Amino acid sequence: MSTNEIKVGVLGATGAVGQRFVQLLEDHPWFRITAVAASERSAGKPYAEAVTWRLDTPVPEAVRTLPVALCEPGLDCDLVFSGLDSAVAGPIEAAFAAADYAVVSNSKNHRMDEDVPLLVPEVNGDHCAIIDYQRKRRGYGRGFIATNPNCSTIGLTMALKPIAEQFGLRQVAVTTLQALSGAGYPGVPSLEILDNVLPYIGEEEDKMERETLKLLGRFRDNRIEHAGIVVSAQCNRVHVQDGHMECVSVALENKTDADGLAKALRNHRGPPQELGLPFAPARPVIVRDEPDRPQPRMDRDAENGMAVTVGRIRPCPVLDMKFVVLSHNTVRGAAGTSILNAEFLRTQGYLD
Amino acid sequence: MSTNEIKVGVLGATGAVGQRFVQLLEDHPWFRITAVAASERSAGKPYAEAVTWRLDTPVPEAVRTLPVALCEPGLDCDLVFSGLDSAVAGPIEAAFAAADYAVVSNSKNHRMDEDVPLLVPEVNGDHCAIIDYQRKRRGYGRGFIATNPNCSTIGLTMALKPIAEQFGLRQVAVTTLQALSGAGYPGVPSLEILDNVLPYIGEEEDKMERETLKLLGRFRDNRIEHAGIVVSAQCNRVHVQDGHMECVSVALENKTDADGLAKALRNHRGPPQELGLPFAPARPVIVRDEPDRPQPRMDRDAENGMAVTVGRIRPCPVLDMKFVVLSHNTVRGAAGTSILNAEFLRTQGYLD
Amino acid sequence: MSTNEIKVGVLGATGAVGQRFVQLLEDHPWFRITAVAASERSAGKPYAEAVTWRLDTPVPEAVRTLPVALCEPGLDCDLVFSGLDSAVAGPIEAAFAAADYAVVSNSKNHRMDEDVPLLVPEVNGDHCAIIDYQRKRRGYGRGFIATNPNCSTIGLTMALKPIAEQFGLRQVAVTTLQALSGAGYPGVPSLEILDNVLPYIGEEEDKMERETLKLLGRFRDNRIEHAGIVVSAQCNRVHVQDGHMECVSVALENKTDADGLAKALRNHRGPPQELGLPFAPARPVIVRDEPDRPQPRMDRDAENGMAVTVGRIRPCPVLDMKFVVLSHNTVRGAAGTSILNAEFLRTQGYLD
Amino acid sequence: MSTNEIKVGVLGATGAVGQRFVQLLEDHPWFRITAVAASERSAGKPYAEAVTWRLDTPVPEAVRTLPVALCEPGLDCDLVFSGLDSAVAGPIEAAFAAADYAVVSNSKNHRMDEDVPLLVPEVNGDHCAIIDYQRKRRGYGRGFIATNPNCSTIGLTMALKPIAEQFGLRQVAVTTLQALSGAGYPGVPSLEILDNVLPYIGEEEDKMERETLKLLGRFRDNRIEHAGIVVSAQCNRVHVQDGHMECVSVALENKTDADGLAKALRNHRGPPQELGLPFAPARPVIVRDEPDRPQPRMDRDAENGMAVTVGRIRPCPVLDMKFVVLSHNTVRGAAGTSILNAEFLRTQGYLD
Repeated sequence: MSTNEIKVGVLGATGAVGQRFVQLLEDHPWFRITAVAASERSAGKPYAEAVTWRLDTPVPEAVRTLPVALCEPGLDCDLVFSGLDSAVAGPIEAAFAAADYAVVSNSKNHRMDEDVPLLVPEVNGDHCAIIDYQRKRRGYGRGFIATNPNCSTIGLTMALKPIAEQFGLRQVAVTTLQALSGAGYPGVPSLEILDNVLPYIGEEEDKMERETLKLLGRFRDNRIEHAGIVVSAQCNRVHVQDGHMECVSVALENKTDADGLAKALRNHRGPPQELGLPFAPARPVIVRDEPDRPQPRMDRDAENGMAVTVGRIRPCPVLDMKFVVLSHNTVRGAAGTSILNAEFLRTQGYLD
Repeated sequence: MSTNEIKVGVLGATGAVGQRFVQLLEDHPWFRITAVAASERSAGKPYAEAVTWRLDTPVPEAVRTLPVALCEPGLDCDLVFSGLDSAVAGPIEAAFAAADYAVVSNSKNHRMDEDVPLLVPEVNGDHCAIIDYQRKRRGYGRGFIATNPNCSTIGLTMALKPIAEQFGLRQVAVTTLQALSGAGYPGVPSLEILDNVLPYIGEEEDKMERETLKLLGRFRDNRIEHAGIVVSAQCNRVHVQDGHMECVSVALENKTDADGLAKALRNHRGPPQELGLPFAPARPVIVRDEPDRPQPRMDRDAENGMAVTVGRIRPCPVLDMKFVVLSHNTVRGAAGTSILNAEFLRTQGYLD
Repeated sequence: MSTNEIKVGVLGATGAVGQRFVQLLEDHPWFRITAVAASERSAGKPYAEAVTWRLDTPVPEAVRTLPVALCEPGLDCDLVFSGLDSAVAGPIEAAFAAADYAVVSNSKNHRMDEDVPLLVPEVNGDHCAIIDYQRKRRGYGRGFIATNPNCSTIGLTMALKPIAEQFGLRQVAVTTLQALSGAGYPGVPSLEILDNVLPYIGEEEDKMERETLKLLGRFRDNRIEHAGIVVSAQCNRVHVQDGHMECVSVALENKTDADGLAKALRNHRGPPQELGLPFAPARPVIVRDEPDRPQPRMDRDAENGMAVTVGRIRPCPVLDMKFVVLSHNTVRGAAGTSILNAEFLRTQGYLD
Repeated sequence: MSTNEIKVGVLGATGAVGQRFVQLLEDHPWFRITAVAASERSAGKPYAEAVTWRLDTPVPEAVRTLPVALCEPGLDCDLVFSGLDSAVAGPIEAAFAAADYAVVSNSKNHRMDEDVPLLVPEVNGDHCAIIDYQRKRRGYGRGFIATNPNCSTIGLTMALKPIAEQFGLRQVAVTTLQALSGAGYPGVPSLEILDNVLPYIGEEEDKMERETLKLLGRFRDNRIEHAGIVVSAQCNRVHVQDGHMECVSVALENKTDADGLAKALRNHRGPPQELGLPFAPARPVIVRDEPDRPQPRMDRDAENGMAVTVGRIRPCPVLDMKFVVLSHNTVRGAAGTSILNAEFLRTQGYLD
């Protein structure tokens, strides 16, 4: 193990998000998985035996034989990625942070805590500074909790950020067509979605309407001021494996046209691109000009699933502009952003 | 044949819409198919031999042996239903009207003609009076052309009508999730839609944004004044056989809440209901209270596919109220509304 | 209630098969549902409240308000249809039979009991006489247990019976493509079957290989002699809602050709047809000549889902003849055959 | 361009198979695309403009600007891969061979010519020697035609070859569940396959029953003696994008059990493995022990889509043994085997 490598653990390692962490971290240049933790039922078994692996690449060799531990501090690592179920994530993540672990979580429990960053580095990297306040307020030492937003919020805010910066954002109306993998495993029964659409995803609309305001908010005086915009979300589940599509309309402070909007999106770069982080896509937002793109199966894997794709930019007769956003919900929308968050936090000194 | 029966013909009888006309007219109490017409390729053959039947009920016995004629006046009938392709429908329909046939069409060609009614009886039955002006202006005798809107516009306007009447409508933002049967046959290749969504349907957004204004407009002084509202549409094709779902937000002149909106929709009745027309659903709009309805497979066949189902009525943070509409795109959204139009026009004396 | 009506109960009434019983028995001319029973969790609630109804017709009015009872003798009825889970069906069904109820079951538990008929009336109606032996052996009075086979076995044996009778059957090789509804609810997760096939269904191959021998066996001397044929089954789950397709090859004692086989299948009639039973299809086996039929979506509803459809009859280079069978797995393959069994047993005096 | 590189052209380069050739040949260590040819409609345009690219990786940079030529000799290359439609492939391929081009084809036209090898290197590499006879008989100089089998035959014969060698093969009964990409583009309409199975694929059963005999036959005295076995095929189209699944039963000369069969399949290696060809999978046949594998989505990409996966090996009550085979129909089943054929033919001196 090189001296630069950081030992990481995965909490909830046998679950859907946990498996994606294990898959994506294989061959990571900075992070090496040295611990996997899950529920009592799996504890003690080698990972390859405890997990019902559902991804289409094999279980990484280096993890196959790691014994599954319980989700308690004591793991041999400095950083834990949390893919824990929200039913249990809250206190476990707090316990790890209190025990000096850096906790980078995909779970919803601490997202809206006022002293926890809800982070997408291309959107609000500067919010990470709230960690200093968090440590002081909670009495943490080296430990902390950082979270990433809900899958559909991540794709949305990556497209909204350059628009907000350049044109000012007043209102956002979004209707989603979300993939089945967003519901985890076993998730949606096949009999419910074959030849069908489900026009409801529990809590999803509320998450999009609230998390977006925190993400686009401003950090100052040890506070994150939520953005003064209004978001309306309608969320649907469709018959797609991976890739959330979102039809978005926006009202702007300063008018622009399709070319202006496309240019702002195309030119957007954030700290991950400037820092050349391992998981950073070269372009966070890809803009396509074809009339019928983005499409989930054609665009979800753009830049290894870390870029979002925007298309169909055109004026909206009701608000100002409308367009379609597509992002890979379990890569950029979950584990991939967590890993990028950890990379970014390292460059900011929070893993020292 | 009873003396009350009206002889009808079907133009484009071997196509997707034409087949639906033939299916739905079986056992109709007023209309009897006495002529079927299609392109030169089919002409002369018995219908059952000329058609590649794709519906899951058998070809009606009474039509199986009818010889397929060319689409030219001279058919033994008084009324023709047109399911013609828009590439040819325009002049053919005009020729039939000039030759004293009542033409009730599902094709788009004459929809926006200022002297042609774009009709959904529950929405704008009174617009049929423009036929008098049409006959005078075009020099028609007994003949005329009446049309119904695009499939996605029909479902939308059936939900909007009671809202417009009771609360006043200012703005409509709608995102659709449309079924594959809307693209006809062969339509969308399976390789394009498996595990995918197509975020584009040619001309569809434009049709929804324009036809809605005519439908919700006011008839007076031999003119249809288009409604002064603004509509924004985003149209997607999803992996569903039948049933268009639409996520709608509306801005109202007079505020209301979910209960008020639901009540207006539930209580709506139009001329077809008052007249007890054969194809009229008892309730044009069904409102469901479950959090996850309507769904295409569960709700498309409500009232034999002639009712639209609305659910998820709730406030919209950006406009005023939002909800989901579901309608059967090839029944209520096409042939079924044409037949209801013909029934209604008969009661108004236009088939005498 | 007419004096001819028989009061029936449904065991496991809130489950997938139980719901189908409730749906199919609406308006049955002989049977009236007077009791519904389920697990402790549902007991005491009105049926409409206890059930999560998943069929696309509404809950029958007459059953909506029936209180759900526990699955114990004491129900106000003479006959019970059992859609119980196999984890509990065995002793419950036996208790009802011992308490003088006629038990007509779709569950697997008693299927292979030597004194229980495994019944498809068109295939082995005469096997019902084993009930006399069952009553004597088990000390039952008026009560008894009759079962129907596994869904895929029913479709298969309905096609094999006329072949066995007319040409003599030696070997059967069958590969199935089975629908998702066969797995009940929640059944197969959508993420497992989207863009996929599952080449394994637990116990299914064994059931087909064993049940077929009992069904095609001979009843004599109070025994059912299993048929001396050999069956090999390969079972797959495919992305279809309803309708099991089976690709079958057979070795015959007496050779025939495609026309001969088609004729034998087309002409087959059994006791349900001769007796004109309410649930009997006019033709138990429909033979189609098109090269690409049967297909699940086009043929599963033939004769209200009670007929099986056979197509592609042709010589097999390895055995003798091959063909494709399609049957509706939850109607003819489950609740529908149970109801037909009850109708048939009534005509044979077993419900007196 | 290194002196070792061979210039290759792709015939039918804009079609479904042609696109796969272009995709798979990117970065090939031996072959470099220097010419692309298609129909008159595309001729003259740069490839990226002429093609409607449908694969989910981008058009290779080196090919984007190549001008599309007509499918006539004169192309600047030594070897052509043919993905031509069978309506035109026959004479065009012959013309190229006569003009000294090596023609490696995926089209069916010359497959059963007695002097043309029908080649899968792991199955019948030695058949390539028939090229000497072909050249003499047809008066070709440097040119020749070599073909690969139908997609479903390739997967089948790769599994049958080690069985035939080690146990002797007498009979094969196979039922396929084939992917949609096998039908090309636009291929199967979505309305035909949603919630459905198509039990018929034109000519497919005949191809499997005949091509298998040639592939498993013996080369001697400048002849390919077809194998003296019997094959029966039933072919179905299912709702899967890529990956043909086949349920196979075999009758053997020398009995074995599941372990014996698995061992023979696992240990099989052919000339591509011994020679270490660039496109050779390390293991041509992967055997899986899980009860529910292979599955199309999980196993089609094994070894970059060049390995076939076998599972569920067990005794067959009718023949001797049965099992399930899965192969990627457009990689191993088409363009990938063509490329492997070309690599193999080079090592045998046929490209000198």
